[in-house]
Amino acid sequence: MNNFKFWSPTEFVFGKDTVKNVATLVAKYNGTKVLIHYGGQSAVKSGLLADIEHYLQSECIEYVKLGGVQPNPVDTLVYEGIELCRKENVNFILAAGGGSVIDSAKAIAAGATYSGDFWDFFEGSVTVNQPLPVGTILTIPAAGSEGSPNMVITKTEGMLKRGSRGNQNLRPLFAIMDPELTYTLPANQTAYGIADMMAHVMERYFTQTPGVETSDRLCEAILLAIIHEAAIVFKEPRNYNARANIMWAGTLAHNGVCGVGREEDWASHGLEHELSALYGVAHGAGLAVMFPAWMQYVYTSGIDRFVQFAVRVWGIENTGDKKEIALKGIFALKNFFSSIGLPVNFEQLGAKKEDIDCLVHTLQINSGGTLGNFRKLDMADARAIYEIAAQKSV
Amino acid sequence: MNNFKFWSPTEFVFGKDTVKNVATLVAKYNGTKVLIHYGGQSAVKSGLLADIEHYLQSECIEYVKLGGVQPNPVDTLVYEGIELCRKENVNFILAAGGGSVIDSAKAIAAGATYSGDFWDFFEGSVTVNQPLPVGTILTIPAAGSEGSPNMVITKTEGMLKRGSRGNQNLRPLFAIMDPELTYTLPANQTAYGIADMMAHVMERYFTQTPGVETSDRLCEAILLAIIHEAAIVFKEPRNYNARANIMWAGTLAHNGVCGVGREEDWASHGLEHELSALYGVAHGAGLAVMFPAWMQYVYTSGIDRFVQFAVRVWGIENTGDKKEIALKGIFALKNFFSSIGLPVNFEQLGAKKEDIDCLVHTLQINSGGTLGNFRKLDMADARAIYEIAAQKSV
Repeated sequence: MNNFKFWSPTEFVFGKDTVKNVATLVAKYNGTKVLIHYGGQSAVKSGLLADIEHYLQSECIEYVKLGGVQPNPVDTLVYEGIELCRKENVNFILAAGGGSVIDSAKAIAAGATYSGDFWDFFEGSVTVNQPLPVGTILTIPAAGSEGSPNMVITKTEGMLKRGSRGNQNLRPLFAIMDPELTYTLPANQTAYGIADMMAHVMERYFTQTPGVETSDRLCEAILLAIIHEAAIVFKEPRNYNARANIMWAGTLAHNGVCGVGREEDWASHGLEHELSALYGVAHGAGLAVMFPAWMQYVYTSGIDRFVQFAVRVWGIENTGDKKEIALKGIFALKNFFSSIGLPVNFEQLGAKKEDIDCLVHTLQINSGGTLGNFRKLDMADARAIYEIAAQKSV
Repeated sequence: MNNFKFWSPTEFVFGKDTVKNVATLVAKYNGTKVLIHYGGQSAVKSGLLADIEHYLQSECIEYVKLGGVQPNPVDTLVYEGIELCRKENVNFILAAGGGSVIDSAKAIAAGATYSGDFWDFFEGSVTVNQPLPVGTILTIPAAGSEGSPNMVITKTEGMLKRGSRGNQNLRPLFAIMDPELTYTLPANQTAYGIADMMAHVMERYFTQTPGVETSDRLCEAILLAIIHEAAIVFKEPRNYNARANIMWAGTLAHNGVCGVGREEDWASHGLEHELSALYGVAHGAGLAVMFPAWMQYVYTSGIDRFVQFAVRVWGIENTGDKKEIALKGIFALKNFFSSIGLPVNFEQLGAKKEDIDCLVHTLQINSGGTLGNFRKLDMADARAIYEIAAQKSV
């Protein structure tokens, strides 16, 4: 096990009717002028936005609003948010939505107190320092951004999708999580969320660091819980406990606790980002395609771990040769993704084999030419993995 | 799943040679005059105390020292610590030791800023408010106090052992956790620690709250990891990864994450506290005796959960009747405790059947006459459970 620091100070307020705590929480963290940041019409139609406004008004907390965040949030709205914060002297950002809204809010929070261009944080040249405080009301369990220090933004010029990780002071101060807000999520969005949170666990699970049994078991626990609840939630979208377990699993998948003391991978995320940047596909959909493809390419570099994954997570019987067991685990994951309606190859995703050159080209720019740790990958490896993903057979 | 709040803001600094960060961490949390609180000679002999003093001196941080904390820490030393803090204008308490030292430090921290008698916090009449900040250097993984808001202190007059739970502002600001500091722990103390952390998980696991799959899996993960690493650590006490996995499991067992959204039990802890108060036995040893006895008494009140425990944690085959499987799980736990040298009945613990009247008498005073949630227990139940524990057969 490697040395580590783990700090997850976010206050999670979880359960039915917890949105009513929003004004108290904003006030607790000294918010007096709030930017409410949200996505499209769903926050309006569901009444969530009106509820937030009502609660803030009732505590005499001033606010301005900025909606319009899209999946794969873009820099242009971030610039708009930064300008609005400065103009209105905003001192607290409240993100009401899923990971895209929260990531956009974090970028605004970081940029509003920085004299340069916020994109510097994504070039790796500057570290986030004293951002505006961020609180969240989560409506889509997926990205885990409500409990993480990370953000992913796409620069529209050149469609560069980049992550900025490890800005510990960007962890939200609070996360209000009401599973009932997710009742109306369409099945595909529920599935994308599940793929995303499972990927967050697996990026940490697949490591070469030895002696990490406690976090191994933790990773497996979260995967097992998600798989168990998925079987319920697609049949009963309004099953409170299924929604609640998935929502909480999504937070634990990405607040860092699954990755302590181990080298993480993140190659599949890097490979996927090019897909969602190029095609605008949902991140979770892209991950469902890329993660199994990555696994098929790298599993021989640490077959014991893939055997453990197969046996402990998918209940594959531990007999026969390791290669067979490992492959059974990978195909069990792929079958699971298929069973909940996720794409598992380029065709199902709407991606094209002939775009692989282009994907590798932008990946080269964004990654600097290498990615991953479980196996260090170069652009030839990346191309090979895209080619596996482009195969039609499941 | 029930509504919950979860807030675990402690900064965990984990790994080899992490003690060297102590002065930086104290300074980060504005400590300028520190009380170093510790136990007996082991902190001196190991050189830990000298190291701490060296690091604080090198950053010009002033300090005073108060050693002498014993297992089952007592009020008299807490009063002494409170007086010392006031006299010396201490503004930060650094606990270097195990759960007893950290609990004693928390009680001093709470009492030093309170005008009344600190025991009020244990009578339930007063809530801890603005305690002195506490940081910790953990040397015995067991109690989980390094990441919890709880403390347990024994009032020498009447030997009343009481817990004060849920003082969220008593969570330590940081926990330095170097597994190498635990290399020299004797086998019995290692085993007591394992029983304690497993009990912390199980007090949460055994619940009647339905629909808590994510935290169920989490509880099982931590138990599985501990069981796995225990098989290594007693053979190889200086196995870094085994020590590290056990140490981190002990923190997760009690920082609250295992208990979110569910009613917890805590009857076994209540039953045990009387044993350690009366006989001065280690808390972990008492728990190894009382937890299986409690299980044998209550398992029919929620047999499905005991079946799940048997199957998922102990790998008992899920065939035959539920009662048989549940009992196999309980006996697997008992056998595990025995296998690592823990007592599993009164005789092995050094407790006496003829003291049961006395145990029930003080339990009545400390508990108010009822305990537990998985099954609500009265003093007749408590007596019956002590009687099971007093049986000789394993």
